[in-house]
Amino acid sequence: MSSTPYSTLDGVSHPYYPVDATVPFYVANTTPLLTILFSFAGLIAGFVVLCIAVSKYVNPKLRRSDVAVIAWFAVCGFLHLFFEGYFVLNHKTIPGSQDLFAQLWKEYGLSDSRYLTADPFMIWIETLTVLIWGPLSLLTIYFIATEQTALRHITQVVVCIGHLYGVALYYGTCHYVERYQGLRYSRPEWVYYWGYYAGMNAPWGVVPVLLLWGSVKEIKRAFEDGAGRKNL
Amino acid sequence: MSSTPYSTLDGVSHPYYPVDATVPFYVANTTPLLTILFSFAGLIAGFVVLCIAVSKYVNPKLRRSDVAVIAWFAVCGFLHLFFEGYFVLNHKTIPGSQDLFAQLWKEYGLSDSRYLTADPFMIWIETLTVLIWGPLSLLTIYFIATEQTALRHITQVVVCIGHLYGVALYYGTCHYVERYQGLRYSRPEWVYYWGYYAGMNAPWGVVPVLLLWGSVKEIKRAFEDGAGRKNL
Repeated sequence: MSSTPYSTLDGVSHPYYPVDATVPFYVANTTPLLTILFSFAGLIAGFVVLCIAVSKYVNPKLRRSDVAVIAWFAVCGFLHLFFEGYFVLNHKTIPGSQDLFAQLWKEYGLSDSRYLTADPFMIWIETLTVLIWGPLSLLTIYFIATEQTALRHITQVVVCIGHLYGVALYYGTCHYVERYQGLRYSRPEWVYYWGYYAGMNAPWGVVPVLLLWGSVKEIKRAFEDGAGRKNL
Repeated sequence: MSSTPYSTLDGVSHPYYPVDATVPFYVANTTPLLTILFSFAGLIAGFVVLCIAVSKYVNPKLRRSDVAVIAWFAVCGFLHLFFEGYFVLNHKTIPGSQDLFAQLWKEYGLSDSRYLTADPFMIWIETLTVLIWGPLSLLTIYFIATEQTALRHITQVVVCIGHLYGVALYYGTCHYVERYQGLRYSRPEWVYYWGYYAGMNAPWGVVPVLLLWGSVKEIKRAFEDGAGRKNL
């Protein structure tokens, strides 16, 4: 990143906002941006393909809509367990590291420096994400593949509420910190604020609504069917 | 409150932790502690009795276990909509106000000063609580009273996940801020940390687990009944 301004407080210059943020031991990424982005996309795609392949092996009769839901929860599971798991375990050393995931976090941090400053809210909400929403995402895939429909819709509702609440808190705390404390964590360029920060988190505000709607319909139908049976 | 130390930074002395917290226009409570606590308990009890009475009027056949769940969600609804709603609307003026709810927040603030310092995380998570968990708590009562069993268990699961995630974030952010930034928001006396902060929030880490367990059993049974019907 060659954008200005670079902070030079604490003797460490960095491209993050606010410019006086403390990003200890920061070193700029050494791998070209497109290389780390395509590597990341490749890893995610590989994990999605793996999850779908195993699910289809377990249950060859999977419907196309179920495969789409499996793909979504595979993306969630990968990001929660591996990418966000890496953050939780390594948040102190990310600014100075050149691991693939560290370079990705340094790039994403341009849109939200809290990932590079060991922000307590981020560490804790990410810890919960890794420990709870990650495993539950993969568990939902398991319940879909094994046609445990009741449990599938229960975990689906639970993870969707977790995602919606999480993304609302993520956007909301940023907004309120900006409004009440005048702090901006994102660089001002369009690509960072709207592309990374707003855009890359938006799917977790949209897809869960659709999945939730589907699960609510299925749970309602199950209760109606059950009531119908009692009346036979 | 006559406990020491009182901060005298910013020209305003207050009993809150950290001692250098900014609590603008703070004035000590004028009503005796027991009076505000019993008034609060009375208001909550009145609202619970009202919700139960209306529910029994609507549905005289309510089971005792359902009445207990209605009582729980009535407590939640009252606190979320009125007490926490008061905080969201008046958080800037609470330190200097002598309203009943303001005096209660000033008392609770001894265990968590973020309620008196316009903390962005608290304002936003409380805003979501008022707008989402409050109405959904009362909606759950409505679905119980009107025996809309599917919708009741759906909203019950949703609110329970919201409560569990919320209390985990509430405790967790405090813990991490203390661990990483050395900040304590609670006065050190046992009654504030363990009585108010830990104790008064603990029900939202326990009751939702029990309710969630009950809803999961009912949803599973509904799917099994529905499947059974298809096999008839």
